[in-house]
Amino acid sequence: MPRTHITELVLRDGHQSLIATRMRTADMLPICPQLDAAGYWSLEVWGGATFDACLRYLKEDPWARLRQLREALPKARLQMLLRGQNLLGYRHYSDDVVSAFVERAAAGGIDVFRIFDALNDTRNLETAIRAVKATGKHAQGTISYTTSPVHGIETFTAMARELEQLGCDSIAIKDMAGLLTPMVAGELVRRLEQAVDIPLHLHMHATAGVAEMCQLKAVENGCEHIDTAISAFAGGASHPPTESMVAAFAGTEYDTGLDLNALQEIGFYFREVRKKYHQFESDFTGLDTRVQIYQVPGGMISNLYSQLREQGELGRMNEVLAEIPRVREDLGYPPLVTPTSQIVGTQAVMNVLTGARYKSITNEVKLYLQGRYGRAPGEVNAMLRQQAIGNEDVIDVRPADLLTPEMDNLRGEIGELAQSEEDVLTYAMFPEIGREFLEHRNNGTLVPEPLEPPPGNGDMGRPTEFNVT
Amino acid sequence: MPRTHITELVLRDGHQSLIATRMRTADMLPICPQLDAAGYWSLEVWGGATFDACLRYLKEDPWARLRQLREALPKARLQMLLRGQNLLGYRHYSDDVVSAFVERAAAGGIDVFRIFDALNDTRNLETAIRAVKATGKHAQGTISYTTSPVHGIETFTAMARELEQLGCDSIAIKDMAGLLTPMVAGELVRRLEQAVDIPLHLHMHATAGVAEMCQLKAVENGCEHIDTAISAFAGGASHPPTESMVAAFAGTEYDTGLDLNALQEIGFYFREVRKKYHQFESDFTGLDTRVQIYQVPGGMISNLYSQLREQGELGRMNEVLAEIPRVREDLGYPPLVTPTSQIVGTQAVMNVLTGARYKSITNEVKLYLQGRYGRAPGEVNAMLRQQAIGNEDVIDVRPADLLTPEMDNLRGEIGELAQSEEDVLTYAMFPEIGREFLEHRNNGTLVPEPLEPPPGNGDMGRPTEFNVT
Ligand SMILES: [Co+2]
Ligand SMILES: [Co+2]
Repeated sequence: MPRTHITELVLRDGHQSLIATRMRTADMLPICPQLDAAGYWSLEVWGGATFDACLRYLKEDPWARLRQLREALPKARLQMLLRGQNLLGYRHYSDDVVSAFVERAAAGGIDVFRIFDALNDTRNLETAIRAVKATGKHAQGTISYTTSPVHGIETFTAMARELEQLGCDSIAIKDMAGLLTPMVAGELVRRLEQAVDIPLHLHMHATAGVAEMCQLKAVENGCEHIDTAISAFAGGASHPPTESMVAAFAGTEYDTGLDLNALQEIGFYFREVRKKYHQFESDFTGLDTRVQIYQVPGGMISNLYSQLREQGELGRMNEVLAEIPRVREDLGYPPLVTPTSQIVGTQAVMNVLTGARYKSITNEVKLYLQGRYGRAPGEVNAMLRQQAIGNEDVIDVRPADLLTPEMDNLRGEIGELAQSEEDVLTYAMFPEIGREFLEHRNNGTLVPEPLEPPPGNGDMGRPTEFNVT
Repeated sequence: MPRTHITELVLRDGHQSLIATRMRTADMLPICPQLDAAGYWSLEVWGGATFDACLRYLKEDPWARLRQLREALPKARLQMLLRGQNLLGYRHYSDDVVSAFVERAAAGGIDVFRIFDALNDTRNLETAIRAVKATGKHAQGTISYTTSPVHGIETFTAMARELEQLGCDSIAIKDMAGLLTPMVAGELVRRLEQAVDIPLHLHMHATAGVAEMCQLKAVENGCEHIDTAISAFAGGASHPPTESMVAAFAGTEYDTGLDLNALQEIGFYFREVRKKYHQFESDFTGLDTRVQIYQVPGGMISNLYSQLREQGELGRMNEVLAEIPRVREDLGYPPLVTPTSQIVGTQAVMNVLTGARYKSITNEVKLYLQGRYGRAPGEVNAMLRQQAIGNEDVIDVRPADLLTPEMDNLRGEIGELAQSEEDVLTYAMFPEIGREFLEHRNNGTLVPEPLEPPPGNGDMGRPTEFNVT
């Protein structure tokens, strides 16, 4: 019996973190027999930014991808990442949309739903958890890890207990920025293990180069599930390499039971795949310990870089990096993860570029200060709120409580373009690019963005070592 | 008081492992003030393949490099890697050459001499250790780590005790292949700590992606010195990133005392430097867990790859990888490190390509079987020895005991070309390329190999983030 269980991320977070979510289904299918047989606890294959990237760039139907993967991976547990009441979109949906989405995803093949909220407001997770339980699938509640004066081990153990009471089958610690350090990870896991009876999963980005050590300490302290990515899509903005974690525990009481030879074949396959997507490689996906200093996730740093470069203001990067923690404080210390990473980042850029803090305030910050995203972890800056929203109401209910059912409306709006309930949900997630996608699909005019040919000597082909066994 | 001390490898093993030892002194000097101030326990700057690369490719005088670095790094402890009685060459030298070399290196600025032998035959270390002690410098005895039926914790603790008795100031565990796993590293360190009173240093290549975890477990078990390379030259065939290990231990009882901000500046500097040497990047310097299966160091795999490709026999890579452990067994399980890595690798290739094992036997294998490199760790294959050397003598003394003093001869041979004792030693290390180098230097006709311009858009310049503070 293996003691440490692996969730393989290469088909979702691995390529999302390293090549801007561009891996195509056609590059996933050939290796599915090996992935299916490898003995992973689960394969993360869907959700996060994959839905968006499929529609926007790859011109693939994300639901069709799910069906194809399900067929190619008959044995594996398939996992997705779901943004609570946001699902895979960027707003709060009414409960009937959440239920319909979860039901269709489960029917399409998802076995494990990892559900998170950027504010750790469990009210934003309730409907999704309930919907998953109604399908009989595995509901994994998620703690979005961060550090701040209002976050500590007590905060996280309390949240874990809540998630357990909501019926979650397991709990994920999601350290999207890579802020954990080994001893902190060990202690956090030890305390969470004491607090709840359901299994813990550790999902941690390798940005600062400490994720392997954190997983080791987590496992030593009782965590039985870790997330890894096969070596070709591991490291830096991605995750610890699967092969390395398997090698690290082989022959110990924490053995994963996975076979290194089989994993190496998978690794060599994806090494070649990655080369096809070289145009999406970024300078900012490697090791970067700045996350440990600024607490800003690697993905945000690369985003800010592009944003400032476009505006010819790269020289102000340092000011922006220093402004981010201040905006975060004003907003009551939200963890930085979609969508708060964007809300905080954009406001910080405006605060710097306009020359005066909050001279201009984004619509998203206004909504946030109204409570429209949920409950802030700490107190928000009251003066800022007054300035931003004046005497408008601040809500203290669950944001989705203010929404009426909307599936019927959505069906009506998209009309004949939708050929299935899945199509309606595609439109619901991305009203503009979803509609456009459906139009082109129906007309047979979908054209994926082009891939640049590999640089240099293209005739080398696969290295002979591919078949090392 | 920091508890964990760092040896920074970027100026020697880092670039040796990742860009074929090609970093030029001119790219080291600008960052020396920051390296000097960073608070490392030591900086590895010399020895290994750097001497050879300076003469052969860079057309730099290695002794001049040492002087320049010593001047630019007035405070830092400078460290070198010395191959016992081989010094930096590929044969055994007489004791007077060893003493002269160590004396000149110490005079040139080396403070710490890490001394190893490929067979762990301590007789091959004695003269160098004695010579270092005579200069008043730090002598670090080295255990070349490997796994085999004749190697175990007892073997290594016994060797550690020997090294302590020989007067070593510290002991390095040198895992050049990256074979250690975290729990084994922890246990090995625990036992070595019990066996000796001098400090332990852990030098481990990151090839399999487990080195950070090994260092963590080593430190937890009492190891107070680890070797790391600044992030830009870390990972894969190189070593754990300095910044990551510093971040991992920051604020714990194992704190390194180093400042992450200062290290990041160094890291950003070397990120730009590395781009200059892109032509020396290899496909085989990344993560490769095959070392954990075949026990073959990453450097050897890439070497075999080139060797087989040149002969149009790449398709036989698997056979060669399978043959290496068999040759190693026949030779009594030598650790695979220079020069045994080459001796075993070349014979394995011949055994495969000639179609019959030992149909042809290299001269080096014959010398090895005569005991000319020292004592094999285990029993050698007696039939093979009979076949290889017939009735020729097998020596059981220290190989250098059969050598008479040779400094005077060397001085005579090189004559006027040598302008200093250092020049004589350069010639001693590399009779052909050393002589050629001295000729060109004296004539003012040294021409370093050209560097290819950086690929793509060369006008991006340094990223603005260079100065993030
Ligand atoms: Co992630
Ligand atoms: Co080394």
